[in-house]
Amino acid sequence: MNYGMIIYLLGRIMEIVGLMMGFPLAVAIYYREPVGIWFLICGLPISVAGVLISRLYHPKKQDFYAREGFIVTALSWILLSVMGALPFFFSGEIPSYTDALFECISGFTTTGASIIPAVEELSHCINFWRCFIQLIGGMGVLVFMLALIPSTGGQDIYLMRAESPGPSVGKLAPKVRQTAYYLYAIYFALTGAEIICLKLAGAPLFDSMCTAFTTTSTGGFGVRNASLAAYSPSVQYVVATFLFFSGLNYNFFFLIYTKHIKEAFKEEEIRFYSGIFFLSVAAITLNLILKQHYAPEEAFRHGFFQVGSIMTTAGFSSIDFDSWPSFAREILILLMLVGGCAGSTCGGIKVSRILIYFKTVKKELSQLCHPRSVKVIMFDGKALPHGVLRSANIFLITYGSIFVASLLLVSLDNHDFTTNFTAVASALGNIGPGFSLVGPTQNFAFFSAPVKYVLMFDMLAGRLELFPLLVMLNPSTWRKR
Amino acid sequence: MNYGMIIYLLGRIMEIVGLMMGFPLAVAIYYREPVGIWFLICGLPISVAGVLISRLYHPKKQDFYAREGFIVTALSWILLSVMGALPFFFSGEIPSYTDALFECISGFTTTGASIIPAVEELSHCINFWRCFIQLIGGMGVLVFMLALIPSTGGQDIYLMRAESPGPSVGKLAPKVRQTAYYLYAIYFALTGAEIICLKLAGAPLFDSMCTAFTTTSTGGFGVRNASLAAYSPSVQYVVATFLFFSGLNYNFFFLIYTKHIKEAFKEEEIRFYSGIFFLSVAAITLNLILKQHYAPEEAFRHGFFQVGSIMTTAGFSSIDFDSWPSFAREILILLMLVGGCAGSTCGGIKVSRILIYFKTVKKELSQLCHPRSVKVIMFDGKALPHGVLRSANIFLITYGSIFVASLLLVSLDNHDFTTNFTAVASALGNIGPGFSLVGPTQNFAFFSAPVKYVLMFDMLAGRLELFPLLVMLNPSTWRKR
Repeated sequence: MNYGMIIYLLGRIMEIVGLMMGFPLAVAIYYREPVGIWFLICGLPISVAGVLISRLYHPKKQDFYAREGFIVTALSWILLSVMGALPFFFSGEIPSYTDALFECISGFTTTGASIIPAVEELSHCINFWRCFIQLIGGMGVLVFMLALIPSTGGQDIYLMRAESPGPSVGKLAPKVRQTAYYLYAIYFALTGAEIICLKLAGAPLFDSMCTAFTTTSTGGFGVRNASLAAYSPSVQYVVATFLFFSGLNYNFFFLIYTKHIKEAFKEEEIRFYSGIFFLSVAAITLNLILKQHYAPEEAFRHGFFQVGSIMTTAGFSSIDFDSWPSFAREILILLMLVGGCAGSTCGGIKVSRILIYFKTVKKELSQLCHPRSVKVIMFDGKALPHGVLRSANIFLITYGSIFVASLLLVSLDNHDFTTNFTAVASALGNIGPGFSLVGPTQNFAFFSAPVKYVLMFDMLAGRLELFPLLVMLNPSTWRKR
Repeated sequence: MNYGMIIYLLGRIMEIVGLMMGFPLAVAIYYREPVGIWFLICGLPISVAGVLISRLYHPKKQDFYAREGFIVTALSWILLSVMGALPFFFSGEIPSYTDALFECISGFTTTGASIIPAVEELSHCINFWRCFIQLIGGMGVLVFMLALIPSTGGQDIYLMRAESPGPSVGKLAPKVRQTAYYLYAIYFALTGAEIICLKLAGAPLFDSMCTAFTTTSTGGFGVRNASLAAYSPSVQYVVATFLFFSGLNYNFFFLIYTKHIKEAFKEEEIRFYSGIFFLSVAAITLNLILKQHYAPEEAFRHGFFQVGSIMTTAGFSSIDFDSWPSFAREILILLMLVGGCAGSTCGGIKVSRILIYFKTVKKELSQLCHPRSVKVIMFDGKALPHGVLRSANIFLITYGSIFVASLLLVSLDNHDFTTNFTAVASALGNIGPGFSLVGPTQNFAFFSAPVKYVLMFDMLAGRLELFPLLVMLNPSTWRKR
């Protein structure tokens, strides 16, 4: 294990976290909020410590492989959360450190599950920090670092693989650093465009910024107690549309940008995602009109909004969807498991994996009847490598195992099955709200501290696609070979 | 497709069904119940028709492969159910044919979900028929046929594979017919032993027989409204013990019988099953003592009984376990998914598959860190063939897909999530009761007819381990090549 390199990279992460705290500090100065001083008190020493560490421990050995990639990723996300929670706690706006840590992990992992009953009572700078960490967590801090800092060795691809969602890393450009740069460029362009659209639709600038941060990162934190129900229908349409875009594989935008329009719309994952998305919108709209007697526009708007919000794992609400009929609710529960496209900022199992599963079953059914025929699974016109297939299967099994173990632990708090099931689905899929006691009008404050830690683990595991944390916790990783 | 052979085998199945109706007829004669005449009126023509068909269509071609095996299995189970439901319906004791079919499929598939609010009001012969079809369905009708009827070709292994549960068919003897014979011998020996034990524990003979039929088949139908809560603790202990045995791989009994005692206890699946079983019993017992203030003996008895009943997918209840604390309830929900050992009469995903999943994840975690190391998954001291691994993965994906599709369809009836989730889990896992509206004190009568058909499909799909029905419904199966 290359400890020198691990410590060096963690030091650089600390530099970035410290610098990030400058942004809420600026907001505090603008709104003249004295509580903002905590961002200086926390951020400055963290940055300085980071600079010192990354200078002192400048690594001699350059060997850096998958194992080190997983460890750095897992440790840096834990470090980020532990440090990012400090301003919440010291400012006194979240009086318990466990709760502050929960809020911070929920932020960085873009889950959006909150333990705060009334966000409107928080100061602007704290609310800004909540939304800003979602922006950073959405695309990934390590990817951000890769885009900014010149590479010191061959570690780039391992870090990118460990932090990026999806069954395989889609490289937009031959160099990892360039790919990271493009990803952040698309990401910030989407966010900027949404801020403008929200402003035009009539939302205040502060709200527009915060909401855009948490839309494109598919985070779901907001600055209003009622979430998106607090805004006009036109704002809701803007957010729903940007949610749909944010669920797409960024490869799509890159193909559009490089004028490969035809190829962009031919991508199987894009088509399958859009198919599931609009089929779900149609089914829910119809269900709401028939069973709840919504007006058609209202049914479509809330259907579109909630499918966008849940499938992309953002977790905003435009209405109390926990009071919807069973069919609409269960479509949303299933979308919680599916998630958005690979190569997006979404959580969940990811559309491309679901597509791989469908193709596998289809192939197997025909193979069962014709055992001697040889069939290959095709994806985007190419044969799917066996490794990708295998890792998609293993992902499903691991997702299921963590889900089951968490469900049992969470049930020790003795709440109903729907609460427990959707709380775990929500944490592991980085969504935010669930149903019943964790429904859209509720929050996560009532859970006991041990259960909160289980959910924090799930949020991190879900964001990092399970393996970095498991590798870190596996004793055999640390054994010398 | 060898249609001649398919029709021939279906004819033989009809012979057997007709003959089977002689047993409830005898019960009707003993109890002097006129309603029993319907078993004669239905059974005689079915038998005669079966004899005629199997003589007329005696197949010329002998070629019979996997495809034909799946088709025969799927069709014969549908045929069984359609015919077996006739006496329920004509006797007037189940006035709707949909309900009669539901009860019959629930019987043959050893699910044990009932649409009858008060079974004590049924006549003896009808109750006997309910329990007797579970006995036949438990080990499988085709296996029964293979044990009795001399083989006419090479079809045996394909039929056995299509009907038997588990990731691979464990052949006890070199010949399929001999294996089938041993399986039924063990099965009847267990059932006989339980009848004697139940009688000794003080249950009436009729109850002992019916209960033993539905224990060793892990069916769960009973002749009392209160299920096993209607009997004494000693009867409950007897049933719980036989449930534990019935969840074991029959390979275990065969090894014991052939005096390979050491090997029997070394089987990994047996150990893993026992581990999950008694860990669950311990967890639930503790939970009931601490949270519900049960007396220790009572907590242990109900814990032991319910784990046995749910994990082996029988579905008896010794108490209203829906009123237990969340933790105990959710252990039971998870056991609904796990099921018993492969090569037993249980439903669910099966312990051996779960064990394969665990081993896969463990291997993958170490492979992630050391990508160039080559590791093989071992099972019972032998390398696990790739085909078994692949089919276990595909089984999981298919199970999940059918689960999800059923959940959405069932939710159209607009009941709560726990009801829908556990009704589907219960049908697909062949358990019987679930939670909430389908809890142990409830029944399935309230569902709409379309939802009942969805659940019937799930019961059959679960009993036949998904693929026979899917192969039958796949258009490409019927295409000429």
